[in-house]
Amino acid sequence: MTTLDQPVLTDARSRVDAAGRAGRRAAKQLALLTRADKDAALTALADALVAATDRIVAANEADLLRGRGAGMPQGLQDRLTLTPERIADIAGALRALAALPDPVGDVVRGSTLANGLQLRQVRVPMGVVGMVYESRPNVTVDAAGLGLKSGNAMILRGGSAAADTNRVIVDELRKALEKQGIAPDAVQLLDGGHEDVDALITARGLVDLVIPRGSDRLIQAVVQGATVPVIETGVGNVHVYVDSAADLQQALAIALNAKTHRPSVCNAAESLLVHRDVADTFLPQMYDALRDAGVRLHTDPRSSAIAERVGTAYEPATESDFATEYLDLDVSVGVVDDLAAAIDHIDRYGSGHTEVIVTQDRAAARRFQAQVDAAVVMVNASSRFTDGGEFGFGAEIGISTQKLHARGPMGLQELTSTKWLVDGDGQVR
Amino acid sequence: MTTLDQPVLTDARSRVDAAGRAGRRAAKQLALLTRADKDAALTALADALVAATDRIVAANEADLLRGRGAGMPQGLQDRLTLTPERIADIAGALRALAALPDPVGDVVRGSTLANGLQLRQVRVPMGVVGMVYESRPNVTVDAAGLGLKSGNAMILRGGSAAADTNRVIVDELRKALEKQGIAPDAVQLLDGGHEDVDALITARGLVDLVIPRGSDRLIQAVVQGATVPVIETGVGNVHVYVDSAADLQQALAIALNAKTHRPSVCNAAESLLVHRDVADTFLPQMYDALRDAGVRLHTDPRSSAIAERVGTAYEPATESDFATEYLDLDVSVGVVDDLAAAIDHIDRYGSGHTEVIVTQDRAAARRFQAQVDAAVVMVNASSRFTDGGEFGFGAEIGISTQKLHARGPMGLQELTSTKWLVDGDGQVR
Repeated sequence: MTTLDQPVLTDARSRVDAAGRAGRRAAKQLALLTRADKDAALTALADALVAATDRIVAANEADLLRGRGAGMPQGLQDRLTLTPERIADIAGALRALAALPDPVGDVVRGSTLANGLQLRQVRVPMGVVGMVYESRPNVTVDAAGLGLKSGNAMILRGGSAAADTNRVIVDELRKALEKQGIAPDAVQLLDGGHEDVDALITARGLVDLVIPRGSDRLIQAVVQGATVPVIETGVGNVHVYVDSAADLQQALAIALNAKTHRPSVCNAAESLLVHRDVADTFLPQMYDALRDAGVRLHTDPRSSAIAERVGTAYEPATESDFATEYLDLDVSVGVVDDLAAAIDHIDRYGSGHTEVIVTQDRAAARRFQAQVDAAVVMVNASSRFTDGGEFGFGAEIGISTQKLHARGPMGLQELTSTKWLVDGDGQVR
Repeated sequence: MTTLDQPVLTDARSRVDAAGRAGRRAAKQLALLTRADKDAALTALADALVAATDRIVAANEADLLRGRGAGMPQGLQDRLTLTPERIADIAGALRALAALPDPVGDVVRGSTLANGLQLRQVRVPMGVVGMVYESRPNVTVDAAGLGLKSGNAMILRGGSAAADTNRVIVDELRKALEKQGIAPDAVQLLDGGHEDVDALITARGLVDLVIPRGSDRLIQAVVQGATVPVIETGVGNVHVYVDSAADLQQALAIALNAKTHRPSVCNAAESLLVHRDVADTFLPQMYDALRDAGVRLHTDPRSSAIAERVGTAYEPATESDFATEYLDLDVSVGVVDDLAAAIDHIDRYGSGHTEVIVTQDRAAARRFQAQVDAAVVMVNASSRFTDGGEFGFGAEIGISTQKLHARGPMGLQELTSTKWLVDGDGQVR
């Protein structure tokens, strides 16, 4: 940090610390709300967003105009755009949250000790949770809703591309909270520069958890710079391994779905590994299907030879291809000698998100699930199912690829901590 | 970091990275061991330690000699000393671990989705766990045993005061593991300088978790410097609040036990808060009992006035007294106006470890447990019960004072992560 930056950081520090303190005060109230209170508030927030549709769309248009002026790619513009229909969907997600059970107060474990002490481990809110994310403005609403339902005060730091949209959304949410008798500081938005992020991720004692959600670059910057606890989310270098004992029609459908159903998301497949015994039979059909879907192939020598033979266009895969999360219509392809080689490859290049084996061999499935070190390890299913909604969590705040606290899709439960309540009648040691 | 330090750090970096890679290889084997394998190995480790008693005692004497030469305080010498009896106790702790259930493989949650996908969230080892701790050499054995039972490879970094003892213990453990057919790198010891700690806590991708255990200074250094996930343990600025509705004899026994039963540990009380309505009755008796136990009083104005009146020696408490974890025969004392004031005081000075209310008033107990933000919140019991052993966890790796992943006493379960296993028959989206 240069001396010139110092005053800016100091400003950000005091601004973020003030937000942290306000968040802590709000969190005290949130922790004591009943489920009925919170569900009523969620419904009120949904109503408020729908009522503010025109205002939100206008702010969103300002963001889009600025984005187009700055040459924002079409894909990002699509993600940023809010229409009345999308706003209704986002409000619907809040109503769906109201219908989910409240994790706060759940008794996780409990026992009575020999001396009569009664122990209960109960779920409690984390307190103040920071979210650092990129352009999609629906994340602003989802995070606010998940925070409210789980009793956490949220400090949100969205991408600058959605600044106007987020500002209006948060303003509407705060007004609606206040009308419900809930401290509006339950949802706060930081809209300063990157120094706000630096201050947020180092606000020890004020912020209990930070969740980054977005590009690998964003996530790594948060993880490296944070002194508050972080849950790393999202990077998915997902493999589909087609075993020698695979049902090849099933393998084709799964690999195609995992790659092409929605290539821009983290649970999309990026790499296809095929057992050498079935490569000659399987890959020609797979290549046809991928080509028809517009997928570019990045092939290792053995899979290149097959592409050559059947006349499919390909590019030889580089080392970095296998390490790349394309998030696009590209796939790396490798032929492996056996299950062990597939597991080794995944060990080396995988990001610990989701890994899939397609096989009818029970022993191979069992070994793959035991040895592959990832948040989700699937047999005979598309990686696209790694998703809080699909898993039945209702909403999702992200997909954790770390091992501490939460691993895989994170819903309401993952936004809670626990507290031990001990009840005695005078016990001493 | 100065340029001069660079080569040292680079050495430490490559040494620790090599340990991390060796740990990952060992962890792959550990993750697949059955409970029977692990329990047999724990028993073998216990036998090996007992058989090596003379060698361990000799190494320990070398550490003690060095410590005395450097003016080590008697208390620290006591903690460092290993006798044949203590070695037998430490070995006994390993045997006790063998008797505990294995957390690995436990199914935490599960469901079958509408499309027939079967989901199971199962406990799996973390992988490679680093421990940074201070002098007591029994922690070396406990950590190795907890790591083995939970399927984690451990990289240990003990205090330099116990260097010889730890080196011999780890050597014996590794030989015993090898005889059991288990990779000896399941337990590794780092015995370089502080640069080893720096390298360990930044070994992202090689180390899954670091647990610091020891002084506040050690813990804060690890938390501030780490880029790998950390579980913060241990600092306990523990309060006992005596409510207006307390059974005063019970309050006396609890406060005395919490303060004096073992003042040097984190679950000992450091501060006594008394409701003003009972202060005049309660404090004189409490002062007598504390004085008889050799406890020094650090009193706020109102509790000073009572001490003055009854002729008990006291020192006026400073602001920093209330923030201090004495770990000694000292207690800060405050008189509060009501329950809310007690909770505010704890909010301000507490470290989130254990907080106690003594009361017969159900509403006060309920409110205290709901509003106090700590790992353990007790009614009518001594804070000394916050302990993995007392809670029935068998062994304990530390007491977490953070909210992520583990809060309160950490046993085997807290050393595990989870993995989602998804079983399908061709499901796609």
